[in-house]
Amino acid sequence: MSSYNTSNLNKVIRGSNRATYDIETVNTILDDGFIGYVSYVYDGTPISIPMAYGKIGDKIYLHGSLKNRMLLSILDNKKVSITVMHLDGLVLARSAFHHSVNYRSVTLFGDAVKVEDENVKRTALKCIVDQMIEGRWNTLRPMTDKEFNATLVIEVPIQTASAKVRAEGAIDEKSDLELPIWAGVVPMKQVALAPESDNLLNPNTHVPKHVLEYCEEHKD
Amino acid sequence: MSSYNTSNLNKVIRGSNRATYDIETVNTILDDGFIGYVSYVYDGTPISIPMAYGKIGDKIYLHGSLKNRMLLSILDNKKVSITVMHLDGLVLARSAFHHSVNYRSVTLFGDAVKVEDENVKRTALKCIVDQMIEGRWNTLRPMTDKEFNATLVIEVPIQTASAKVRAEGAIDEKSDLELPIWAGVVPMKQVALAPESDNLLNPNTHVPKHVLEYCEEHKD
Repeated sequence: MSSYNTSNLNKVIRGSNRATYDIETVNTILDDGFIGYVSYVYDGTPISIPMAYGKIGDKIYLHGSLKNRMLLSILDNKKVSITVMHLDGLVLARSAFHHSVNYRSVTLFGDAVKVEDENVKRTALKCIVDQMIEGRWNTLRPMTDKEFNATLVIEVPIQTASAKVRAEGAIDEKSDLELPIWAGVVPMKQVALAPESDNLLNPNTHVPKHVLEYCEEHKD
Repeated sequence: MSSYNTSNLNKVIRGSNRATYDIETVNTILDDGFIGYVSYVYDGTPISIPMAYGKIGDKIYLHGSLKNRMLLSILDNKKVSITVMHLDGLVLARSAFHHSVNYRSVTLFGDAVKVEDENVKRTALKCIVDQMIEGRWNTLRPMTDKEFNATLVIEVPIQTASAKVRAEGAIDEKSDLELPIWAGVVPMKQVALAPESDNLLNPNTHVPKHVLEYCEEHKD
């Protein structure tokens, strides 16, 4: 299987020319992020909350306190969706109507389950930290049993998903092209600035390789 | 009134020490963005979609095609919430448990209504473009009646909201402070790169002041 099946749930209607159900595209977009907007329903009102996620294969992992309202609520409702978007540019056209943004986004759907298996839970927690910044977990003080037991981990198997990608310039009306109005793209990027070391660092400590590499990969 | 009232809907339980209901803080966070994650329910599944928004006073405006499934769905359901978040940094602690991010976020709640008044609709559309990049609307080819009529505009009065802000370093266990593990913050920022002009520009056109100013304000 190289594409997700489409249904009324994940089929993109508006701007369907930019939609794809290709699993590799979905994976690449998810691998490029670490914060997803997780949606749930509270008392009839849909709410989405940005959360760190980890990804192993076609499974997404979320974590939080045992008392986290959203996590408990999605375990109750089971049906969950998560949206991840990277903003790549402002698309400035000659008319307001054709303004847009360049972006890569995924919305995925699955039935949430609590992770009970201790090995899977441990692997998921490692994966959430390393999704934020690769290589970090192995440098850390090991997790205590108390921390482990105080953390709820939820698995969301990607049952279906859609991606949308826009990566081009302004598309104006032909009749507008000769107008003396500037059009183009302002590329946008989320960048990392120089790391700021903690004031209380052990003096034998230096900024580690995984942090320097992250900053190098995410510079302007 | 300088703060939003709290109820079960908007009261922040987890990390409540970082929560505020202060209207000025909420406004500043919303003013600093232009994309919000709008949540709706489709066939029992909550979904959130990133959308451009405009803001006039305590009202949020969304727009889209007359056939936009999400917009029609939130008009049906009325109850809508929108989440806006700015990522400001990775907070890298000495233990996995204390990893976090620095951010400013708002979740707002309101009852969506379709904008019928033509003047309000026109002002809302201007505001959505200018929220993305201030000063742009007045430089554009004026909206045609056809474009105006093909666009659905929805108003969401902010009935209540909450903000969360984290803006500090790693907070580790005291017993971890002497460990030879690097901790600190990697500041993150969404930046604008140099504008890329459209290939078909009228040759008398230069990158306008509002674009240059935007890039200057959003540089590394």
